[in-house]
Amino acid sequence: MKLLRVGTAGAERPALLDADGTLRDLSGLVPDIDGSLLADDAALGRVRAAADGGDLPVLDATGLRVGPPLGRIGKVVCIGLNYYDHAREIAAEPPAEPVVFLKAADTVVGPYDTVLVPRGSAKTDWEVELAVVIGRTARYLESAADGLACVAGYAIAHDVSEREFQIERGGTWDKGKNCETFNPLGPWLVTADEVPDPQDLRLRLWVNGEPKQDGTTAEQIFPVGEAVRYVSRFMTLYPGDVINTGTPAGVAMGRPEPKPYLRAGDVVELEIDGLGRQRQELKDA
Amino acid sequence: MKLLRVGTAGAERPALLDADGTLRDLSGLVPDIDGSLLADDAALGRVRAAADGGDLPVLDATGLRVGPPLGRIGKVVCIGLNYYDHAREIAAEPPAEPVVFLKAADTVVGPYDTVLVPRGSAKTDWEVELAVVIGRTARYLESAADGLACVAGYAIAHDVSEREFQIERGGTWDKGKNCETFNPLGPWLVTADEVPDPQDLRLRLWVNGEPKQDGTTAEQIFPVGEAVRYVSRFMTLYPGDVINTGTPAGVAMGRPEPKPYLRAGDVVELEIDGLGRQRQELKDA
Repeated sequence: MKLLRVGTAGAERPALLDADGTLRDLSGLVPDIDGSLLADDAALGRVRAAADGGDLPVLDATGLRVGPPLGRIGKVVCIGLNYYDHAREIAAEPPAEPVVFLKAADTVVGPYDTVLVPRGSAKTDWEVELAVVIGRTARYLESAADGLACVAGYAIAHDVSEREFQIERGGTWDKGKNCETFNPLGPWLVTADEVPDPQDLRLRLWVNGEPKQDGTTAEQIFPVGEAVRYVSRFMTLYPGDVINTGTPAGVAMGRPEPKPYLRAGDVVELEIDGLGRQRQELKDA
Repeated sequence: MKLLRVGTAGAERPALLDADGTLRDLSGLVPDIDGSLLADDAALGRVRAAADGGDLPVLDATGLRVGPPLGRIGKVVCIGLNYYDHAREIAAEPPAEPVVFLKAADTVVGPYDTVLVPRGSAKTDWEVELAVVIGRTARYLESAADGLACVAGYAIAHDVSEREFQIERGGTWDKGKNCETFNPLGPWLVTADEVPDPQDLRLRLWVNGEPKQDGTTAEQIFPVGEAVRYVSRFMTLYPGDVINTGTPAGVAMGRPEPKPYLRAGDVVELEIDGLGRQRQELKDA
């Protein structure tokens, strides 16, 4: 299923994009698309049955904003340097074990929302990523298969990053990863049953129509199930948590000088096989 | 005012500890103690008037657990290496600008809850910290005075840290800061009007009755208002966010070998002037 949330920020309604591409209203069936829904097999089953039965009301999407496909996000855990090709482009060694950092859930916006270039920023960069949405509590998992079993679905994440704040201002990366609007998510949460192999997805990103990233999750150093297993040894993952699983080659930081960092007016588009497409215009904060 | 939340995890009720030390029930007046209450002057005014008028019902605390004093915590931002004496004890240079990292809000537990030693941990360490609770949205603030004006109140935080996970496992500090139960908070949220000088608070911590930390917020490299101002340049702070402002000298990591890291059965107690006292027993995860 392709689950999404439409409406103004903070007042999104749950919806489903059916096989015909018609938007269906789920608000009579479930209060929201969030961790408690994803952990509730019976409720998910009712949504699936209603979708299969074709008896969900059509939702008129005219003028409706698409929000992030997940409400009440717990935490956003990110895997850094998780693609061989990206590690090469920035001349970094592939890490021996996953690099883990956090983004605040309040950085998450909709897939077509404006992204703000922070004040004082000269190095705002793009990163297309496969986001993994957790549906089962993951605590001290033993295997990558156990990790995959905790995944409710997938979405596109744009892990926007300010490289000076991230790398040149002391301390950890978090200063450059948590600026307002820095994590567009969506448009859809695609349930895991419709993503047969998360390690065989093409990820692409364009800036002002020019292709910048064109990678595959086959290049992931730590595949999805292993990433979930690993993270669960250090922190407990709950339904409604998100893992951004890293970005392939092609970011601005990895290019020759002058590096083409983002500025107000730029338009970024992102696509992952089967997960839809995002589009954001940048504006000054 | 001393605001707190009592009851089982996830079902806490709002309460007030009055000047006589009597627990008063706030659940008839406000739904919870959280960011939306702290940002609502009228609602806070009603609580204050009811407290001053002495017409709040007594709450029988017998057998009631004390939860964290803040519900629906947005994000927990931490300032690392923020005390001159702590930087000296671990032979680190005082940072030129604040070191910033995040803890997941789901690590927050009540002040007397069990703290879990993670599986595989050999270096679980203590850190008593002054927690700052945000009551006004802080975005690109210009001055430390503006920073202080965004503070709704203060509480004790225990920033429990696993040093091997934090420092020796690659990447950022987050692996050692986000283990389950790693951020006891409370017992009270003391409103800012009752903390005349946040830079003149004594912080103490004991392990099994032995004094381990005895510091003062006068040693903070970046005082509270400046920390809020600085963080607001990189991320937006919202009502209900928390800043852990760093720990003074005396952590296990700063001691001679064999360093006295925490183990199951240890009891940690923490105290800050006017903010009450915490007590946690450690158990194996």
